[in-house]
Amino acid sequence: MVEQMGWKGASKWKLDTPCLVVDQDKLERNIRDMQTHVTGFGKKLRPHAKTHKCSRIAGMQMDAGAVGICVAKVSEAQVLVRSGLKGTLITSPVVTDYKIVTLMDCLSLDPELMIVADNLANAKKLNDEAKRRGLRLNVLVDLDPGMGRTGVAFKDGPSLGQSIHSLPGLRLRGVQCYAGHVQHIACFDERLRTSLGWMEEAANVVLEFRKKGLPCEIFTGSGTGTSEIDTGIPELTDLQAGSYTMMDAEYLSIGSSGNPSRFEKFAPALTLLTSVVNTNHADHVTVDAGLKALYHDGGTPYVLNPPSPDLEYKWRGDEHGQISFPAGSVRFELGDVLELVVSHCDPTVNLFDVLYMTRNDVVTDIWPVDMRGKCM
Amino acid sequence: MVEQMGWKGASKWKLDTPCLVVDQDKLERNIRDMQTHVTGFGKKLRPHAKTHKCSRIAGMQMDAGAVGICVAKVSEAQVLVRSGLKGTLITSPVVTDYKIVTLMDCLSLDPELMIVADNLANAKKLNDEAKRRGLRLNVLVDLDPGMGRTGVAFKDGPSLGQSIHSLPGLRLRGVQCYAGHVQHIACFDERLRTSLGWMEEAANVVLEFRKKGLPCEIFTGSGTGTSEIDTGIPELTDLQAGSYTMMDAEYLSIGSSGNPSRFEKFAPALTLLTSVVNTNHADHVTVDAGLKALYHDGGTPYVLNPPSPDLEYKWRGDEHGQISFPAGSVRFELGDVLELVVSHCDPTVNLFDVLYMTRNDVVTDIWPVDMRGKCM
Repeated sequence: MVEQMGWKGASKWKLDTPCLVVDQDKLERNIRDMQTHVTGFGKKLRPHAKTHKCSRIAGMQMDAGAVGICVAKVSEAQVLVRSGLKGTLITSPVVTDYKIVTLMDCLSLDPELMIVADNLANAKKLNDEAKRRGLRLNVLVDLDPGMGRTGVAFKDGPSLGQSIHSLPGLRLRGVQCYAGHVQHIACFDERLRTSLGWMEEAANVVLEFRKKGLPCEIFTGSGTGTSEIDTGIPELTDLQAGSYTMMDAEYLSIGSSGNPSRFEKFAPALTLLTSVVNTNHADHVTVDAGLKALYHDGGTPYVLNPPSPDLEYKWRGDEHGQISFPAGSVRFELGDVLELVVSHCDPTVNLFDVLYMTRNDVVTDIWPVDMRGKCM
Repeated sequence: MVEQMGWKGASKWKLDTPCLVVDQDKLERNIRDMQTHVTGFGKKLRPHAKTHKCSRIAGMQMDAGAVGICVAKVSEAQVLVRSGLKGTLITSPVVTDYKIVTLMDCLSLDPELMIVADNLANAKKLNDEAKRRGLRLNVLVDLDPGMGRTGVAFKDGPSLGQSIHSLPGLRLRGVQCYAGHVQHIACFDERLRTSLGWMEEAANVVLEFRKKGLPCEIFTGSGTGTSEIDTGIPELTDLQAGSYTMMDAEYLSIGSSGNPSRFEKFAPALTLLTSVVNTNHADHVTVDAGLKALYHDGGTPYVLNPPSPDLEYKWRGDEHGQISFPAGSVRFELGDVLELVVSHCDPTVNLFDVLYMTRNDVVTDIWPVDMRGKCM
């Protein structure tokens, strides 16, 4: 960090590469636009920090009106709790003894901390530990929208809810249903049909909860890809979108309500800068961003600057990438810097210690990716 | 780090997951076996640290007889130079102004530091900066074995060598030729033919250097996958193998001289521990290691413990994995820990801050991955 602070005030084009830069104007607009969108439908926003892994961006989301922040892992929650943020939701089950102790440490600092559960034995263990520490843990029943990853089947949701409600160390707050496998369906209409199908089943569980007199003031779910869609579910209380802050090639290439082949509601605030290190070929140059700088997953990264439809990024091993073009059509010099939209923002941000924050291409600040590496 | 030190003396099966563990006995044997192998052929070992990104392991390799350590990037070299290691070779071109300044800072601390060059303008820039600082930089001509990534064509090697030799701020030491695209060819005989083909062409450049009276005491190249092969090239002076320290599913699945379908000379010293977090299905469980803990590249990770040919790992998004098995054949409990051989060791190590060092499954020490994130 100390070495990086010298970059403040510099043009982003002078930064040591590869590095991640964030256009603050775009970031602020993305945060504001999503908040305005969900508020317009009478919903709340509970943005997912697994995308940006940066507590300062989480703070911006809270300041913009978010009801709380989601994280995937206890180690991420620990960072947010220590930074003073309240009401964090951990969206994956917390099952091991070690993690349950850490979870309770966090809960003792933030009584509004919330987790999900999809297993009765686990719920009982959480209850025992909360009681032992004189605490009460907020819990959502995690519903599985046919992914088979985490969650319980819809039919088992109400009985698990009933059991959790009977445990005095736990406070049942409602349900979560996150259809991760739906978010990137390219065709908007198909995504709409699929998402509404799953979310309506989850909404029926909410109605079951109410019929049984179980607390259910929260029904949280959805993501960036279905944020235009799931607002149509009356029972849904809040949306867990994350990628809308940063955006990436994977999300930008899916259809949206206004454009069948492009998701245009949010701008790519996050980009990667990479330098040309080899110019010995007529049809390509080699750049300094490979697998370790640009996570090989999701969409194909694309060149934002210099703007040209002819430039194509390809991974060339751990340390390098290749920018291809029709032979002789472009001329790059050693050290020339290119700006790319990354393939998949979440795991790419997780490769870097800092985000260079910029306005009009000038570095305004350096923000630590303080949840980087927190996969525990 | 402070929080992690409490794990010393604990069973590795109690560690917070996902995490990387290194079996020190296997690591030591791998390091010794490769050193013995190359020494037996009258060669030197110049191991590549881009695999383990850990200066303590680099130190072990030097203690075992390595002639120097390779790194891919200047930021990695900076870590090694600061740790006191001498004679580091940076195996990719260093071209930007910022990096050249950092390079010269490193050179002023270690006069034996060495880099590669594949471009005359770049060599002149390095020469100017070295002269300005009153330094002399060791340089190898980087030869391209048909990859089109970095390096110059074989035919252009001698003239670039001649030019570098004429620059007073540079000290020509020889050539590098690394055939990265050959290392993982599954069929051993095909790998042998392909590697010898490229390395013999590089050896001809060495002979050209000698004919022209150019210094060429170093011809460095090769990797773990061709370490059994390239020792047959008389002109080759040292081997740049890296993955042999850790090993991974990608390397273990290629053929070797003794076995057409398995590379058995080195043991998987590196493994990943992951915990079961969902048991709601008869044919699979969900574990806590996904894309962010187990880099999605290379071979298919496989389950080492519990040992069973029926268990299969699949990535299930950023945060989770799935262990599949025939329905009802295995019973896992929440919190059960599995041990996996990782897909591709280099980018996976780069996802973690520490390596838990173990002997007989007990944590002996925690070593920082101090070159993690150093992709600059």
